[in-house]
Formats: sequence, C-alpha cells, structure tokens
Amino acid sequence: MSLRIIFTLVLNFLLVSSFFGQDEDAHMIKKIHDEALGNGKAYFWLKEMCQNHGGRIAGSEAYNSAANYTRHMLSTIRGVKSYFQSCEAAYWKRGDKEKVFIMDEKGKKTHLHALSLGNSVSTPGKGITAEVIEVQSLDEVENLGFANIKGKVVFFNRPMDPTQIRTFSAYGGAVDQRAYGPSKAAEYGAVAAIVRSMTTASDDFPHTGLTIYNDSLQRIPGIAISTNDADKLSAKLKTGRIKVFLKTNCKMMGMRPAPTVIGEMTGSEFPDEIILIGGHLDSWDVGQGAHDDGSGCMQAMEVLRIFEATGYKPKRTIRAVLFSNEENGLVGGINYAKISNESGEFHLAALESDAGGFSPRGFSFDADTAVFKTYFRHINQWLPLLESYGLSFEKGGSGADISLLKSQKGLLIGLRPDSQRYFDFHHTANDRIENVNKRELELGAAAMASLIFLIDKYGIK
Amino acid sequence: MSLRIIFTLVLNFLLVSSFFGQDEDAHMIKKIHDEALGNGKAYFWLKEMCQNHGGRIAGSEAYNSAANYTRHMLSTIRGVKSYFQSCEAAYWKRGDKEKVFIMDEKGKKTHLHALSLGNSVSTPGKGITAEVIEVQSLDEVENLGFANIKGKVVFFNRPMDPTQIRTFSAYGGAVDQRAYGPSKAAEYGAVAAIVRSMTTASDDFPHTGLTIYNDSLQRIPGIAISTNDADKLSAKLKTGRIKVFLKTNCKMMGMRPAPTVIGEMTGSEFPDEIILIGGHLDSWDVGQGAHDDGSGCMQAMEVLRIFEATGYKPKRTIRAVLFSNEENGLVGGINYAKISNESGEFHLAALESDAGGFSPRGFSFDADTAVFKTYFRHINQWLPLLESYGLSFEKGGSGADISLLKSQKGLLIGLRPDSQRYFDFHHTANDRIENVNKRELELGAAAMASLIFLIDKYGIK
Repeated sequence: MSLRIIFTLVLNFLLVSSFFGQDEDAHMIKKIHDEALGNGKAYFWLKEMCQNHGGRIAGSEAYNSAANYTRHMLSTIRGVKSYFQSCEAAYWKRGDKEKVFIMDEKGKKTHLHALSLGNSVSTPGKGITAEVIEVQSLDEVENLGFANIKGKVVFFNRPMDPTQIRTFSAYGGAVDQRAYGPSKAAEYGAVAAIVRSMTTASDDFPHTGLTIYNDSLQRIPGIAISTNDADKLSAKLKTGRIKVFLKTNCKMMGMRPAPTVIGEMTGSEFPDEIILIGGHLDSWDVGQGAHDDGSGCMQAMEVLRIFEATGYKPKRTIRAVLFSNEENGLVGGINYAKISNESGEFHLAALESDAGGFSPRGFSFDADTAVFKTYFRHINQWLPLLESYGLSFEKGGSGADISLLKSQKGLLIGLRPDSQRYFDFHHTANDRIENVNKRELELGAAAMASLIFLIDKYGIK
Repeated sequence: MSLRIIFTLVLNFLLVSSFFGQDEDAHMIKKIHDEALGNGKAYFWLKEMCQNHGGRIAGSEAYNSAANYTRHMLSTIRGVKSYFQSCEAAYWKRGDKEKVFIMDEKGKKTHLHALSLGNSVSTPGKGITAEVIEVQSLDEVENLGFANIKGKVVFFNRPMDPTQIRTFSAYGGAVDQRAYGPSKAAEYGAVAAIVRSMTTASDDFPHTGLTIYNDSLQRIPGIAISTNDADKLSAKLKTGRIKVFLKTNCKMMGMRPAPTVIGEMTGSEFPDEIILIGGHLDSWDVGQGAHDDGSGCMQAMEVLRIFEATGYKPKRTIRAVLFSNEENGLVGGINYAKISNESGEFHLAALESDAGGFSPRGFSFDADTAVFKTYFRHINQWLPLLESYGLSFEKGGSGADISLLKSQKGLLIGLRPDSQRYFDFHHTANDRIENVNKRELELGAAAMASLIFLIDKYGIK
C-alpha cells in the first residue's frame, strides 16, 4: 500500500466521520426530503381519499369509509400498528340543496349561492320569507335591539380584512359572525341569519362552517352566502327594503359511529414517550376535504412511511392520529385527550397539520408556561437545519384537535403553511384534489418528518 | 388646560415622534401592503391582459395589442409618463397544431401531446417518420455517435430532479436538453429531436420554450412532449423498436415591431439615478402568459400605482419596464441596455419579477464584484423591516432582461416567489389567469414596492 493510498484513506475517514458527526442530522433531513419528493405517497393517498371518500362529515358513510381506507393504508406501512379509537358524533345532514332568493319590491327573484351553516336547524317546510337587515357585527345587533331585529333575517356582512398578511388572522377577525351570529340574532327575535362567506376572494362559492347555538335561546337557521352574492344583497339593500326567501331542510340525525384512526410505531428506547402527528379525518359534507384536512391526515401518515422507507427507527413512540369530528364538535380530540389522560399517557410532543397542504413556511409552538421557555430554547438550536428549507419557528397556537393535550405539559406544534390560498377553498365545494399541489403537500410532510425526527432523536430539553 | 391634559399631549407627542422617527419606514411598508391587498389593481389588469392579449409572442398582433394596453394603463397612473421603446423581433409562428404519433410495429398509432419548441424549424410538408432513440443527455448523443444517431429521432428524456427544493434548480439541471438537444442531435445526423417537457408534474401538458440552433449545423425540428407521454414513449421503447410520425409547420416570419413598454415617475431629488422595476411583456404563443410573465409586468405597474396612491414622491426616477422578446431572443433586454449605455444612463438598481405571481419569499441580489459587498451590507440593514412579511435576502441571479445592466455597477435584484407550482404552468396552454392567486400576486407587488421604497429613500451605500 503506497503512502498516497494510506493518506487518501485517512482523509476519507476524517471526511466521513465529520459527516456522520456534525452533519448527520442535515444528511437525514435531506434524505427525508428526497424520499418525500422522490417517492412520496401523500398525494396519491389524498387523491384516492378525495375521489372515493370526499365530503366526510363525521358520522356519514363517507367518513366511515375514509376511516377504513386510512386504517388500511396505515397498515401497509411496515412496523405500523393501525387501529380505531371508537368515537360517536352527532351526525348533521344538509338534506336538499338550499333555496335562497332575494325578492325585490317588484317581486323579482334573484338566486343566491348558499349553504346552511354546520349544525344549523332548517327552515320550516314552507320556507321563510322575511325582510333583511344588514349588520356588520354582533354588537350592532345588540345596539339595534329587539324593535329593529324582530321578525327579520339578520345579514352579517363584515368582510374578512384583506390587508391582514396572514389570512387566518383575518378569519379570526370575522368568524364570530358565523359562529355566534345566528344565536345573537335569535336573542333579538330574528327568524334567520345570513352570513357573508369567510373568504377575501370575490367569487360564487358559499363557505359553510360551524355555528354554535346558545342552549337557552330559540334556534334559528344560519345560512352562508357567497361573497359576490353578499355584495349583491348589500347593494340591493341600499336601494330600499328587501325580502328574502329561505328554504333549507338540514337536520341532526342523532349519534353515529365515527372512529378516530390511529397508526403507531413503537419507540425502541422510550416507548412511553408519545410523539403525536395528526390532522382531522372529518371534513364538511361539501367538496372533498382536500386541504381541510385530508392534507394533514395524509402528511401524518406520510411521516410514518418516510421513517420506514429511510430506515429510521424511532426511539420514542410515533403516533399518527386522524381525529374524528373536528369540524362540528371536536369530539374526536376531546375523546382522545380524555382516554389519554385516563391511561396516564405522556405526549412529549404533538404536531397538527390543519392549515392546508400548501408550501410549508414553518412551525408554531405552544406549551404550558412552566415549560415553554425550556422547550423553545432547545428547539431553536435546530433552526439552522431547517432554515434552508424555507422554514421558520414562532410562538403560537398548534391545532384544535391536540390543544387539549396541553395539560400533559409536552410541546404542542402547528405546521404553518403559506396561508394565501386557504380561504379560497375552506369549507366549500371547491376544496378538491385539483387545488392541491403535489410538491407543496410533500414538502409539508417532509418538514413535519424532519422536525419529528429531531424531537425523537434528542428530546426537547 | 389641566396638568393631566398637558401630560397626555406630551405623551402623545412623544409617541407620535417616536413613530415617525424609528417606525416611519415600517409604517410606510404597512401602508404599501394595505394598498396592494386592499385596493390592488395588479390582478384586474392581469385578468384583462390574459383574456384579451394572451399568447403574446413578440411580433404577434397579441403582443402589440398588449403593448398598447399596458402603455395605456400606465398612463392612467397620475405622475407617470408612459412610452414605447421601439424594438423589432424575429416573429416565430407555430402554425397548425402539431401532429405527433407513436407508430408501433403493428402499425398502431398513439397520439402524443406535443408542441414545437420556440424558433424550431418545421418538418417537411409530408412529415417525418423515423425510428426513435432515447437518451438521457447531450453527452449520450456524442457517445452513441453518428452510426447510432443518423436518420433517427433523438428523444431526450432526462426528467427534472423532483428532489431539488427549488424547482428552478431542477429546471437548470434539465433544460440543456431543450435548449441544445436538437442542435446536438443534428450534429450526429438525427432528423428531429423530441424533448421531455420541463416539469416535475406528471400530466398531459407539453411545455414549449426556446431551442438554440448552432448556425454551422443543419436545423432539425425540435418538439416537446408531455411528461405522461414521455413516460409512455419510454415504456414502449423498452418493448422494441418504435417509429414516430412528426408533422409541424411552424416558421420564422421575419422581423416585426415589438416595442418595450415603459412607464416612468421622475425623481424629485436625483432624477438621473434610475431604479428599474420590470418583467417581460412577451410570452409564448400558447396559454395566456399569466405567470410568465404577465404577473411580473403587472407587479411593476402596480409599484408605480402604489406610490401614487400612497402619496409617496420618489427621490429617484422609478421606471417600470415591460421588456419585449425575452422568450425567444432577449432582444428587448439587449436593446434596452444598449440604448441606456449609449445615453450614459445609470441604473442605481433594477428589480425583475420573472418567476411567477406566487407568494413572495424574498429577493436575490447581484452586482459587479467591486460593489456587491458594500451594497449587500447596506441592504441587509432593512431585513428586519421585511422579515415579518415572510421575506428573506440572498445572493443570486436577478432576471434575464436586466442582466445586461450589470456593467452600470448598480444593484440587480430578482423577486423570489415560492417556486413549487411554477413548472406546472411554465410555457404551457395552462399558464392562465385561473392559476394565479390574487393575494399572492398582490403580495409580490407589495414586496417589490417596499424594497424599492427603501432603495429610493436611502440609496444603497
């Protein structure tokens, strides 16, 4: 062996050991991304779920077939144990297509694109015909009072603020109208409530979503209309008194099975430390639930598949949870946390993806105040490994389904994708696979797998 | 006046002066974003241009009507002088729809989705029928040599690498096949070249784009086929010898007028220091040129409109330039730089948006090495003002049209939007307004206006 060959071998050894020391994590994160982008399954799974199990409102047949489908897909990943956590949800059914018309003073009818709000009661069989009064807020209903509201249809028309950079902030600033508007209107004697759809887009898609009734008040129908139609109705109201005709026949169908789906890789060193990754399997009944939240579910499943495909053996237990009934009651998340607490489980971390399958921009972190600083300081060390993938870290909420795990004092995490397009699709017939980009979805899964890999390998303190 | 009122007034004064000192820039940047997102015109302009002036290949009627349209829109912005810079381009016309078939050994025809490459010659009138040979690179053509290539159709089928995080890197790694493949194949006696479309998506859209002939060699037809069809053709080639039939009748139509469109706000303090913002007005003839590069042009126009609407009076001359003929010759950019140099102009900075109307992720900066460090250090001070909008800074290329201004030793800048979806649409019939998100486009314009505001206000060193 020549001196030169020996020298080369030594040099190679030094290079290799440096790589597998300092750069080992970067190498694994690259491998995760290569797997997600080169051999990803998330998009194909999502396509199948959207096409065959769309409109998965909890308790529906579509929900239960989606539960079977995802459980089966999880079982195809080597090393993953898949099972149902039983759960029952109050099943709400839209029934026939909503009929909503403006009737102007000359009796001319103008059709509006409308959807009953989730969990809304229906109109009487003969429909409702009543005068409309437009308001911009719940407070305005109170200020107008019983005399002005009684017998009318209250039209909540405050738009989402387009100047908010983050669309979720704009949503948060307007959604009280949908969530509490019908009940507030009922308090002052209204016969129904119409709500401007929750989007900054000007289009013809009505956006449904949960409305919450106050048990002590009369339940009146709540209906969303598209933003274009909201503008149209508002313009007509400026010309004089306007009546609308509303006919819906949605109703609560009673409790139905709607299991939460779980797939789990048992940890090799600390099996009792659970790291949860998840989304919610249910969607609204319109559209396919592609972004909300088929994407999050498929990404959670894909994290397990990536670990298996790259040969990564987690030290801790990695559990993909596809929650039931987030949209109209959060029963899946409540149920899961209850069972987990009763079993004395500890979730070291829980990461939810429920903001759409768009390009990931980072993660937001939350935890009990007693532990947050320690966790966040620790996590922040890894930022340089993820920054080159366009990811950043911030403090903030995680996800509705996992929020109840906060009392276990682990770390709660939300995937934060680009939010610009989310409310083009959210809760509409347009939330379909065609509007999900394969690479964006895959990058989200890769981002999740990368962070979960680091948490699993190093812990969080 | 009570002491308390005085105290309040003093406090207000302190707050206000702090705001208009330290936070004045942040305030202006917020105002820019509010204007872009709340009253933006870029999307409406783009929609009109796409619908009425799509397929704007330089020299075409559509190009010239788009030039008139944009010049007129620029003239509607108060304080903007709009004009043409005359330019002539070699006008290439696709002619009849391409006919491309696989003909297997049993004579069965399989239609392929195909587009002639830009500036390609046509097949003879009766078409070309020849055997196909698949290669993965230009080098492979050389290695196969004359004996294996002569008389055949060379099929370049190396895919864009899906594991690259930035799709432009993957494009850069594959586009040599389209740009130089036909000429390389001709060098070894091929009768035509087929190129796999430049996208990581699996779909039926063929992607056109420039091919560059070597003047000393025979010009043979160059044709792109969709990725699905490339996979199909490759699979068939594995089963045995395959012939294809190709018939195209594209041709060069000679020189035609294709003016570059300019809109300018004269600077109040340093009118001779020009800050250019731009994109290219021409597109390929298929589709509407929505992302490539209608978006960049509308964003440049929108920067001027935002300055006018917010009452910002630039110190330097802000010039929106919608370049001609970027796609098939760069004549607009070459011409512009030549005239600028001959007139002794100085471009302090030039910012091009030519990577699609997607969510902005930051800017890349380039300059002559003698000045780059100084500029970049100066610019970097502003990063905190833009980070909260999800923007970052990096060193890198700017844009083809402005690249020739580098010798003026100003700062060259590229807007860097999220790149994941770009190659779903690039150079296809699918590059349409429906695939542009209004908010994403507007945020790009706001990012550009914010950076240009800072450069205008403070200079760059």
